[in-house]
Amino acid sequence: MKVGIVGGTGYTGVELLRILANHPNAEVAMITSRSEEGVAVADMYPNLRGFYDLCFSVPDVEQLQTCDVVFFATPHGVAMSMAESLVKKGVKVIDLAADFRLEDLDVWQKWYKHEHTGKHLFPKVAYGLPEYYRDAIQKADIIGNPGCYPTSIMLGLLPLVKAGWIDLNSIIADGKSGVSGAGRGASVAMLGAEMSESFKAYGVAGHRHLPEMKEKLAQQAGKDVGLTFVPHLVPMIRGMENSIYATMAVEKSQAEIQALYESAYQYEPFVDVMPAGSLPETRMVKGSNMCRLAIYRPEDSPLVVVTSVIDNLVKGASGQAVQNMNILFGLPETTGLQQVALLP
Amino acid sequence: MKVGIVGGTGYTGVELLRILANHPNAEVAMITSRSEEGVAVADMYPNLRGFYDLCFSVPDVEQLQTCDVVFFATPHGVAMSMAESLVKKGVKVIDLAADFRLEDLDVWQKWYKHEHTGKHLFPKVAYGLPEYYRDAIQKADIIGNPGCYPTSIMLGLLPLVKAGWIDLNSIIADGKSGVSGAGRGASVAMLGAEMSESFKAYGVAGHRHLPEMKEKLAQQAGKDVGLTFVPHLVPMIRGMENSIYATMAVEKSQAEIQALYESAYQYEPFVDVMPAGSLPETRMVKGSNMCRLAIYRPEDSPLVVVTSVIDNLVKGASGQAVQNMNILFGLPETTGLQQVALLP
Amino acid sequence: MKVGIVGGTGYTGVELLRILANHPNAEVAMITSRSEEGVAVADMYPNLRGFYDLCFSVPDVEQLQTCDVVFFATPHGVAMSMAESLVKKGVKVIDLAADFRLEDLDVWQKWYKHEHTGKHLFPKVAYGLPEYYRDAIQKADIIGNPGCYPTSIMLGLLPLVKAGWIDLNSIIADGKSGVSGAGRGASVAMLGAEMSESFKAYGVAGHRHLPEMKEKLAQQAGKDVGLTFVPHLVPMIRGMENSIYATMAVEKSQAEIQALYESAYQYEPFVDVMPAGSLPETRMVKGSNMCRLAIYRPEDSPLVVVTSVIDNLVKGASGQAVQNMNILFGLPETTGLQQVALLP
Amino acid sequence: MKVGIVGGTGYTGVELLRILANHPNAEVAMITSRSEEGVAVADMYPNLRGFYDLCFSVPDVEQLQTCDVVFFATPHGVAMSMAESLVKKGVKVIDLAADFRLEDLDVWQKWYKHEHTGKHLFPKVAYGLPEYYRDAIQKADIIGNPGCYPTSIMLGLLPLVKAGWIDLNSIIADGKSGVSGAGRGASVAMLGAEMSESFKAYGVAGHRHLPEMKEKLAQQAGKDVGLTFVPHLVPMIRGMENSIYATMAVEKSQAEIQALYESAYQYEPFVDVMPAGSLPETRMVKGSNMCRLAIYRPEDSPLVVVTSVIDNLVKGASGQAVQNMNILFGLPETTGLQQVALLP
Repeated sequence: MKVGIVGGTGYTGVELLRILANHPNAEVAMITSRSEEGVAVADMYPNLRGFYDLCFSVPDVEQLQTCDVVFFATPHGVAMSMAESLVKKGVKVIDLAADFRLEDLDVWQKWYKHEHTGKHLFPKVAYGLPEYYRDAIQKADIIGNPGCYPTSIMLGLLPLVKAGWIDLNSIIADGKSGVSGAGRGASVAMLGAEMSESFKAYGVAGHRHLPEMKEKLAQQAGKDVGLTFVPHLVPMIRGMENSIYATMAVEKSQAEIQALYESAYQYEPFVDVMPAGSLPETRMVKGSNMCRLAIYRPEDSPLVVVTSVIDNLVKGASGQAVQNMNILFGLPETTGLQQVALLP
Repeated sequence: MKVGIVGGTGYTGVELLRILANHPNAEVAMITSRSEEGVAVADMYPNLRGFYDLCFSVPDVEQLQTCDVVFFATPHGVAMSMAESLVKKGVKVIDLAADFRLEDLDVWQKWYKHEHTGKHLFPKVAYGLPEYYRDAIQKADIIGNPGCYPTSIMLGLLPLVKAGWIDLNSIIADGKSGVSGAGRGASVAMLGAEMSESFKAYGVAGHRHLPEMKEKLAQQAGKDVGLTFVPHLVPMIRGMENSIYATMAVEKSQAEIQALYESAYQYEPFVDVMPAGSLPETRMVKGSNMCRLAIYRPEDSPLVVVTSVIDNLVKGASGQAVQNMNILFGLPETTGLQQVALLP
Repeated sequence: MKVGIVGGTGYTGVELLRILANHPNAEVAMITSRSEEGVAVADMYPNLRGFYDLCFSVPDVEQLQTCDVVFFATPHGVAMSMAESLVKKGVKVIDLAADFRLEDLDVWQKWYKHEHTGKHLFPKVAYGLPEYYRDAIQKADIIGNPGCYPTSIMLGLLPLVKAGWIDLNSIIADGKSGVSGAGRGASVAMLGAEMSESFKAYGVAGHRHLPEMKEKLAQQAGKDVGLTFVPHLVPMIRGMENSIYATMAVEKSQAEIQALYESAYQYEPFVDVMPAGSLPETRMVKGSNMCRLAIYRPEDSPLVVVTSVIDNLVKGASGQAVQNMNILFGLPETTGLQQVALLP
Repeated sequence: MKVGIVGGTGYTGVELLRILANHPNAEVAMITSRSEEGVAVADMYPNLRGFYDLCFSVPDVEQLQTCDVVFFATPHGVAMSMAESLVKKGVKVIDLAADFRLEDLDVWQKWYKHEHTGKHLFPKVAYGLPEYYRDAIQKADIIGNPGCYPTSIMLGLLPLVKAGWIDLNSIIADGKSGVSGAGRGASVAMLGAEMSESFKAYGVAGHRHLPEMKEKLAQQAGKDVGLTFVPHLVPMIRGMENSIYATMAVEKSQAEIQALYESAYQYEPFVDVMPAGSLPETRMVKGSNMCRLAIYRPEDSPLVVVTSVIDNLVKGASGQAVQNMNILFGLPETTGLQQVALLP
């Protein structure tokens, strides 16, 4: 399988390279960057020395058309401009940005401040959350790879939503992300001297992952879902935890909810429902494609609390993208994704 | 003012020493530790070299009776065993542990697994949250210095509670604390190699600060308050953020809630209501006695979100203890507490 | 290949498990711990959930004799007590502790404060630094896996030593290690609240890796080497950097020294001589078995500076142990060791 | 005393504000920044809310001439352009950048790539390292505040240099700095996701603090000093450690060297010679103006090792600047500089 990566200089790009370096069926044939043309990938990312001889090249549609699959690790708007010419040559497209995540383009344009020109491609698109959209992914040509918060929160929330056990009017997701989620662009706020040894909420004006979650939750629930989402920044590089609070609509015990989750995910290779009484830590998934979940039903309370952790760059981005690639090409879903989390 | 500190080897002890080193009216005359008897304070804590010549001594009630005020930076149970003999000599007692925080001793004994022997002292006790118990503190002989989470959460929540603007049945506090909150005892879970670069919820079996908050919130509200509290551990040393979610019972705008808070705290030297649209960061209070708050009323939601940050060792422990000492002795409340937060 | 691990609860134990989980020729058949008997490995280390069904068992020589190779990730003294009974059954022994590192047992006993009872085994022992002892390793039954500092420093220093280009009387190694090097034992000094946001030299009374380096350097040089070694603690989990200073004995340019190193390591899969002008960063090897080196010949100075980085838990411990296992069993040396460093 | 600060948006600027907020004799009357004109200081640095009502203003020489002292926390080149017009009005100038550190302007121009236009001011200039240039500072109008590395290294080295006990031909300083030393400019290399959990040497092409140290060491020694300096970046915000290696020229014991240092610094309020056997940690000086030193004379070695720590933003920049201000105005040198280091 010949792989192209468009826009490989950011963290999701280098993470794709890390994962694909040990994928038995994939070979990265080209990786593009306008700004770094001619620079060896291994000069920019010395962790890759010895694994890749590639240099960054200017994106060229004709060359990309010779690939079997092209990943877009670009800013929003790039994938939609190149996807059609790739798909018509039979190349599969996996976009790690947001171009193909939302179906409601009015909402998309409001949040992304950009005209959306790819509506006619939507019949070929699937939302790349395999645990809930696997059938659609298998038949699709273009994958809108989910955001990191939506991945972690929806995996944590959907069994309760689909069972009809919780009140859908007022769900709260208190999210926490490591700083790699902000990307590799130079910014004062993400300097080590600014973000270390501090913790804060951010995104008071609204986070783009909120409309994504609302649309997909409504699809799965069959009706609108009221969700309040407050993201926070954690002084660490990788990892994301979401604590999700919902009010029980039906009286169910901790054990019943635990059983619901274990049943929902029993065949899923990348969702781990931890034993009752556990609480997941982000280091349990650092560098791995796992999502680990725990359920907590506090005494004397109408609430259920779900805690969900992923590595934002793996299951929250590049690992899930490779998982989608495996599905698209009929490979076992875990191919190349068996990394054990790095602990300590 | 002659000050004694019982149990000065932990983080709240060294923080008392740091603050009192520059307090113009206080002199630390003795500091006790059974395990470190004879060790110079400045040998154990070299940041204090040049500020203190004191050595740790074995706790001796007669010597402590010569002080004007004694701080207990000890495990639970110590202050209640020595307070009476100090108070009867006119010595003020400020307990940084939990012996005098709760009035309901059944609840206390359930959570602290210890017999409480100090009930007869309660007429002399005040709960040391100056913003809400200042009058009682002025008249008291013994101060139960609040826990760090209760300080941050109650300062964030009480204006809404007292105004009657929120539904008291289901409030959520999603708390996050740096690791100094776990104290200076050797433990695997708090090793740098375990807690760095990771984030997790903890305390699934219940946190001792929950009954403290429920009792005090009920006192202030005049009725029981339903509170779900999930604490999390942040990979940083100092600081605490709480994101508090409540459902509006009365329709109020962001601006009205902002005005409520600004009015509530306009004369408080250590509570800073940040401008609308702000979000506090823990580094804004690192090493200082400030609590900084922000209010957020998300669109299309029945909720209000309050974010509140303190330094868990200062306003959450030793700084608030000194603030209480100032009140007890009729000093300006800010005496010795004007440290600017260390940023970056 | 059937693998046993004795003493698997520490960081080198869990790191062996992480690496061996994806080794195509090895299966971990038993892992021992007296204190954790019956506990599932994946309960203690949840990053391993889904990879191992093993529980810790009490060490049992008869059972260990059924393995092909046994790793000792134990305190000093354990491997020497069990090695003989294993070797006589044809089991290979790889000790990650220091029992088989030093040949001079007087020196060993002085530094390790323990009687050494394994002298008669020394004909079967090799020092497990493959780049310099590969032939001996192939023929050995017992491997003394090197310390982390010796691995990084000797890989950085030996080309100059063997070329005779530097003065051997006064070499300086200024070492820096992440905190995982101190192991998983509870200690106040390694608490997150103590080691974060701080940097210090340690080991003023002498570090056990110094006699190990002096013995091996003398073996390679054919004469005694004067080495001053000052280790420092870095506020990070993994990784080690050593800056090595030596005085040129022969006038050689930066380019000549660069060529010497590139030649010395041209066939080594796990030593990367970086281009002239580079400086290695520990994150370039995080989670990988690589050692990355750079040479720097400052202007107007008689010195050469070598900077060398490894992951202390991989090339500095468990990865190198697996590399030695591969050599012992005639496998390609890189088998199971192709992890790309986790960056960012 | 009326204080002006030119260029107050960087880390040395906010640190001056933090220190001066509690200085009893100084009032900050103006603070300038072209880019942030009109922005409230407390909006940019919320740790200062409640301490300052000032807004950033455009630098205006006439207004600055109304101050008693002006600090330049600017890039190199600004102070030299404004100093003359201030000095002629009797305003003292303290430059935290490098304009007045070096006397050899050829060297200056080589390293700073900038024409130096202030040579005629040099008779009014002193190098602001009080421990060695106090008399000159008292008489000066302009202070060249030393770099952070020179402060830490020269305080550590000069007693041995002045005693003539070490070989001056080949001294090594292996320096380590937290990331605040790189300033508040947005850069990829200083992002939290890049610098956290990693350690590296930097500045292979030479560091500007090297010529500064060579000039001042030569002044103090009366002859040229051979110094090799390799700086490293530590994943922490504040603090700096230097391990300095020199060869003894005269046989002296650890105790004799210890006595030399204790004598050299016995009256210095901001240099702490730690007891024999100690090793300083950067957290022992975090937020304080202290330099803490320890001496180590390894067995079987011709070397002496000095380890020296400071907070790079305090004794390495803004604290030392205030110390110089105190000297210039005849105040006790410790005025406003009695902060205890923040530990933990």
